[in-house]
Amino acid sequence: MSHATSRLAAATLAAVAALAGPARAGDPLPSWNEGPAKQAIVAFVAKVTTEGGRDFVPVAERIAVFDNDGTLWCEQPVPVQLYFVIDRVKALAPQHPEWKEQEPFASLLKGDLKGALAGGQHALLELLLATHAGMTTTEFEQVVVEWIATARHPKSGRLFTEMVYQPMLELLALLKANGFKNYIVSGGGVEFMRPWTERVYGIPPEQVVGSSIQTKFERRGGTAVLARLPEIDFIDDKEGKPVGIHRHIGRRPIAAFGNSGGDQQMLEWTQAGGGARFELLVLHDDAAREFAYGPARGLPDTKSGAFPPELDELAKSAGWTVVRMKEDWKQVFAGG
Amino acid sequence: MSHATSRLAAATLAAVAALAGPARAGDPLPSWNEGPAKQAIVAFVAKVTTEGGRDFVPVAERIAVFDNDGTLWCEQPVPVQLYFVIDRVKALAPQHPEWKEQEPFASLLKGDLKGALAGGQHALLELLLATHAGMTTTEFEQVVVEWIATARHPKSGRLFTEMVYQPMLELLALLKANGFKNYIVSGGGVEFMRPWTERVYGIPPEQVVGSSIQTKFERRGGTAVLARLPEIDFIDDKEGKPVGIHRHIGRRPIAAFGNSGGDQQMLEWTQAGGGARFELLVLHDDAAREFAYGPARGLPDTKSGAFPPELDELAKSAGWTVVRMKEDWKQVFAGG
Repeated sequence: MSHATSRLAAATLAAVAALAGPARAGDPLPSWNEGPAKQAIVAFVAKVTTEGGRDFVPVAERIAVFDNDGTLWCEQPVPVQLYFVIDRVKALAPQHPEWKEQEPFASLLKGDLKGALAGGQHALLELLLATHAGMTTTEFEQVVVEWIATARHPKSGRLFTEMVYQPMLELLALLKANGFKNYIVSGGGVEFMRPWTERVYGIPPEQVVGSSIQTKFERRGGTAVLARLPEIDFIDDKEGKPVGIHRHIGRRPIAAFGNSGGDQQMLEWTQAGGGARFELLVLHDDAAREFAYGPARGLPDTKSGAFPPELDELAKSAGWTVVRMKEDWKQVFAGG
Repeated sequence: MSHATSRLAAATLAAVAALAGPARAGDPLPSWNEGPAKQAIVAFVAKVTTEGGRDFVPVAERIAVFDNDGTLWCEQPVPVQLYFVIDRVKALAPQHPEWKEQEPFASLLKGDLKGALAGGQHALLELLLATHAGMTTTEFEQVVVEWIATARHPKSGRLFTEMVYQPMLELLALLKANGFKNYIVSGGGVEFMRPWTERVYGIPPEQVVGSSIQTKFERRGGTAVLARLPEIDFIDDKEGKPVGIHRHIGRRPIAAFGNSGGDQQMLEWTQAGGGARFELLVLHDDAAREFAYGPARGLPDTKSGAFPPELDELAKSAGWTVVRMKEDWKQVFAGG
């Protein structure tokens, strides 16, 4: 670049920066449209951080909890961890010739996910344990690190870690900048999330709460390891979420963010504390930019872009903030 | 105070401060005698915090784990939580007239601790569950807060929270000042510790890992609560400590501090990670200032001020640092 060109470039950059302007630079939530949801978030953060104010909360007590699937990243057409299960079954199949004849593995290996899951919870559990146990915690972490680096969403072709919601990244950053400690509290596997949540969300492993299988201390070749066992330890969903929060954090959150009936108890538990509280549900009603499935749990069992009536009523009577993706979010995914 | 007296006082204070001198002001471990234990600690902190050095560890990975009973506070003549159990049995006895005839309660109410514990693990479990379950988590927290504010050590007459080791408080502060996140990893009840660890040790509730009973989400009068159930959830001792660390923190510590066989696996797990590591055991060999019981677990089952041979050998072969209270600590308890 010549000296003149470089000066022109610098001037252009300055002009663009000026256009973007102080208003935008001062807006911590630029991907959020103006509206009641954005206003409610900004007002809550302002009131709990105003020293001397009636609703002031000391930094140490600023705990916020976030569901992951459908709240921080895309959970459609099926939750990301299920793609991990499918890929792991394929990778492990050569060591398990019996899987060719044995359900739910046989269907999965033929690419028939519906057939594989026809066996319900039992089939899902069998797939989970076969792919998540049988190695040390260190080995499992490496498997996740390698998979998440290349695995892509079947529809968009983008990395799963790019299918995260830009408005929620801005919300996480806003809370962090205001002294909040952000936790993930997810039904997903805790060891499936921890290897990448810091890089993608700025949330370190010790602030991730999730479902888990049992581990066992062993010595192998004189070295201490933790072996992953094919036994469920804890399901961090529905009634399990407040239990997991209390067990892990030992403080009641002052803000909770979810998107489905699996998060209801976490929001109720948060709200039942004294002082200023904030609860928010993301409503998936945007078929054009994402999916319109409302609050579907797991596999898409509804085409409706609305909450089921019970959750809708509860959100209204409890005064929970509802984010409608279609109207509240200027941009859905990180990176556009 | 006259103006002249006040000037004199100020001058005296300045002189005293000068006497204490920069050497003392610069020593982060003033209650530690010079010797190999103190040297090893200081050298470890220096090497993991020296940027560009071979052993440098980023702040986010500076995790240190501490046993509580016998490592941070006095566990003799019996562990503090057992005094809590005794006091709770007495407080609850009017609601349980049957306890007058029923072991292990009957003996305990007569002041016969040995008799009450003659039933072994089963008796202890019965006492624990009867005193730790049957209320909400919020109610239990209040009970602990009130008890710990007034409960005193039977021999010294001081508050239990004053029976904490001054050298270990200095060590916690040194690590914290150097970017470490300090965790308690104790066989004690997690909800028995969390209400006071921040005040006493500067360790917030979310950095306390311990044993737990099960809790259950319920709605009482329309409000979300967590009920404490009379069922063991997790025993955070021996093989349980690495499991609890991994479950809770999701990172391997780079430093571990304990005092008994209950901490052995935690130290092994810490040491098995790559890079610079530090492991330390406190040896109770000081009958004059504390107790000389070596590494006794729970009730004093030995009068020896030495580790059992296995632990002693392991510490030597693994290169663990051993702190001998008698020679390594200038002062034992906080406040003298």
